Amino acid sequence: MINPDIHEILDGHKPLGGVNVGRVMDVLIVASAIAIALETMPQLPGYLRNFLLSFEIFLLVIFSIEYLVRLTTAPRPLRYAFSFWGIIDLLSIAPAIALLTPQWLVVRTFRLLRLVRLLKLFRGSHAMERLVVAFRQVRGELLVFGVIAGLMLYVSAVGIYIFEHDAQPEVFASIPDSLWWAVASFTTVGYGDMFPITPGGKIFTTIVLFIGLGVIAVPSAIVTAALLESETNIQRRIREAAESTDD
Amino acid sequence: MINPDIHEILDGHKPLGGVNVGRVMDVLIVASAIAIALETMPQLPGYLRNFLLSFEIFLLVIFSIEYLVRLTTAPRPLRYAFSFWGIIDLLSIAPAIALLTPQWLVVRTFRLLRLVRLLKLFRGSHAMERLVVAFRQVRGELLVFGVIAGLMLYVSAVGIYIFEHDAQPEVFASIPDSLWWAVASFTTVGYGDMFPITPGGKIFTTIVLFIGLGVIAVPSAIVTAALLESETNIQRRIREAAESTDD
Amino acid sequence: MINPDIHEILDGHKPLGGVNVGRVMDVLIVASAIAIALETMPQLPGYLRNFLLSFEIFLLVIFSIEYLVRLTTAPRPLRYAFSFWGIIDLLSIAPAIALLTPQWLVVRTFRLLRLVRLLKLFRGSHAMERLVVAFRQVRGELLVFGVIAGLMLYVSAVGIYIFEHDAQPEVFASIPDSLWWAVASFTTVGYGDMFPITPGGKIFTTIVLFIGLGVIAVPSAIVTAALLESETNIQRRIREAAESTDD
Amino acid sequence: MINPDIHEILDGHKPLGGVNVGRVMDVLIVASAIAIALETMPQLPGYLRNFLLSFEIFLLVIFSIEYLVRLTTAPRPLRYAFSFWGIIDLLSIAPAIALLTPQWLVVRTFRLLRLVRLLKLFRGSHAMERLVVAFRQVRGELLVFGVIAGLMLYVSAVGIYIFEHDAQPEVFASIPDSLWWAVASFTTVGYGDMFPITPGGKIFTTIVLFIGLGVIAVPSAIVTAALLESETNIQRRIREAAESTDD
Repeated sequence: MINPDIHEILDGHKPLGGVNVGRVMDVLIVASAIAIALETMPQLPGYLRNFLLSFEIFLLVIFSIEYLVRLTTAPRPLRYAFSFWGIIDLLSIAPAIALLTPQWLVVRTFRLLRLVRLLKLFRGSHAMERLVVAFRQVRGELLVFGVIAGLMLYVSAVGIYIFEHDAQPEVFASIPDSLWWAVASFTTVGYGDMFPITPGGKIFTTIVLFIGLGVIAVPSAIVTAALLESETNIQRRIREAAESTDD
Repeated sequence: MINPDIHEILDGHKPLGGVNVGRVMDVLIVASAIAIALETMPQLPGYLRNFLLSFEIFLLVIFSIEYLVRLTTAPRPLRYAFSFWGIIDLLSIAPAIALLTPQWLVVRTFRLLRLVRLLKLFRGSHAMERLVVAFRQVRGELLVFGVIAGLMLYVSAVGIYIFEHDAQPEVFASIPDSLWWAVASFTTVGYGDMFPITPGGKIFTTIVLFIGLGVIAVPSAIVTAALLESETNIQRRIREAAESTDD
Repeated sequence: MINPDIHEILDGHKPLGGVNVGRVMDVLIVASAIAIALETMPQLPGYLRNFLLSFEIFLLVIFSIEYLVRLTTAPRPLRYAFSFWGIIDLLSIAPAIALLTPQWLVVRTFRLLRLVRLLKLFRGSHAMERLVVAFRQVRGELLVFGVIAGLMLYVSAVGIYIFEHDAQPEVFASIPDSLWWAVASFTTVGYGDMFPITPGGKIFTTIVLFIGLGVIAVPSAIVTAALLESETNIQRRIREAAESTDD
Repeated sequence: MINPDIHEILDGHKPLGGVNVGRVMDVLIVASAIAIALETMPQLPGYLRNFLLSFEIFLLVIFSIEYLVRLTTAPRPLRYAFSFWGIIDLLSIAPAIALLTPQWLVVRTFRLLRLVRLLKLFRGSHAMERLVVAFRQVRGELLVFGVIAGLMLYVSAVGIYIFEHDAQPEVFASIPDSLWWAVASFTTVGYGDMFPITPGGKIFTTIVLFIGLGVIAVPSAIVTAALLESETNIQRRIREAAESTDD
């Protein structure tokens, strides 16, 4: 077995003995993310906590082996070690080592580094490329409408602060507090922790909501539209590349 | 009257004595669903509860007759009995029998099987085909963006947990709890049972909401777009089939 | 001045002495609607209540004169009296008479008939036609997806009832109560009066929300799309009619 | 250096000694907006409050210099002084003068005039033009659907008032109060301060929400669509202008 083959197996492009190793690694990464989430539950019984610790050690061994295999079989090991995916692979095993020494003070935040493993899900798939392409495509548009949406949020926050501050000095305590109301209202999430109670504040909210929802929806609509079109664009590029090769 | 005619009558494609029997059966199914809902109301007066029981027995008789008629008039009875609709027809009368013996322990969950009757609404209509076609058409897209949306929810939940856990240890108790916040926020439902109170948590929410709403909206937008286009596609197929027959 | 001219003046298609009478009537109708709303405010000072009563009498006189003018100048008075707009015109003055006899028992609900005046805003404009055209155009689609959306709401309500009834017997008391939760959640309004608290209920909600939001959004999307396209369609018909005349 | 050059430098179209002065001014305007927001925070420590005051004086000096430079280098100073941007420039320094005399009674509201500085962000960029073009393009549509959406809100408010007033006389106290519920519900914000509790009110809400969300969404959809298309239109105009020049 030659080295590039091993990389293709680990990336999930080639099966090994009928098993898609890359897919198995993806499942382990997702299982790792679920384990990280479960660990934070305070009511977790002791035996499950021990199981999760064992699972983390198991993952550490697996990802360490993967890292060593990739490093030793890479055509140019140093280049891999300092490549984007090489650093991600190293970072995804480093926190596990920290996990094993719970005395260490910075261990808690350091453990979150395990989440970089999630990025490995995108290796060898087109999903990452699609996201990057979609965002790059609409970068300019997004910036302009992001600024306009930001201004509208700010002006709405100032307005509601003027109308509601005297009636609810604790709730609409300052303009930054009112900005939080503007975010929750214009995204239509509406948590219900802040809402106008004065007639003026309600009329102001009605007016800015109806004018502003269309404006605020633009950045999200741009992202949605770009993502919906992104695959088409990649396919178009591939087709165009194929056509230019055919000629 | 020949047998296929009876099936056409029961499916609502042919009237019987001026009455569309299939449509009447649909009305009975919907009435059955309403009855199941009403039965759960604790403040229901006794006479209405007795009426609903009688109605259930009436439905049991009707659907049993339908099953027997379909079974006996089917060209190949066994094939019907083990077909998708044959099993649905049988399941939709089985729970009613259980209903009549309230001593039976598993009766409560078993009664819910009556809801499979709802599936019978789709028999003989294009609605089911439309839904299935729409979902099949966008299966790949939906999986990719479903995974991306899931990752974004997870990362947002981890982030809000880091920002809010110390300030609200009861509310943002763990990452799974924070995931529920992420679901309620990114779908813009915003129940108001969980929301950030720290400045860091609010700023984090603002940023991930504006970036994430566009990404999270993609799976729903894909389903909506596919459903809106599905009829057109079925019509196109029918037209293409008709055209290929014409040639 | 001939009779058809008077109708054109009242409909706002022709000015009378430089004043668009139809537009003035529209302003009075909107003012009437605002007055009806203000009358319900309990903290209203007495002088304003008296003013609103006087305003209502003023409107009664104006709309009675309009009705009489329309009736006497109509080419066929009886045909007008029993036409859609003739009945609307009569109904919009009838409640005001009731208003003047507050002893009458049914007066309160009867007074709401004054709201039919709002319909008069649509006379002589294309807005009503646009709405009717848009809804008629998508009637079939709307029915199918309305039924599908209804089924999804019902199934979600049954599901959340099973998961949450034991944990919150007061909140998720019955399936009809759970249906209200389903409506508030799937429209993303999320009042916060009902939400799942069990892990099972939260996971169920997450799954049905992500699958269902796309399906539930279809009826609204159909109406929005039809309304956005309706003008274009009217214009197309007018153009096509013009073209067929040109030939 | 000739005068038009100075204006081009201040507008950000030309760098001065490698620095884009217009861009620096934009950053100062945004910093000014953030400072105005921070000033309202009650828990602000004294030294930060002093720093913000100093920053305001610094901005006052900078914007005063800008105004004087623009005024003296303008080809026709009076014309600039009474132009839109000239008045904006003057208004954006006037409030700062008021800020320095805190004894003055009207100072608080007067200080908000500083927010007009935000408008200066749009000078020399196409963003303002894009917004204006988008709104002008859909003005007619927006008016018609704005009126229809307003009527639907009003009718829904009257309906919920009839259903809920007797059950919740404090919450649904009047039709104007119910209008606030209609706004919060139809925008799907759903603060949770008002919601129906009677079966009739819940069924009414369900029906009007499903019919009305599509109608209410139209004004926002029109704005979003117009903004998404606005750049394309400007580019088309530029292209058409270029083509007509080429001929």
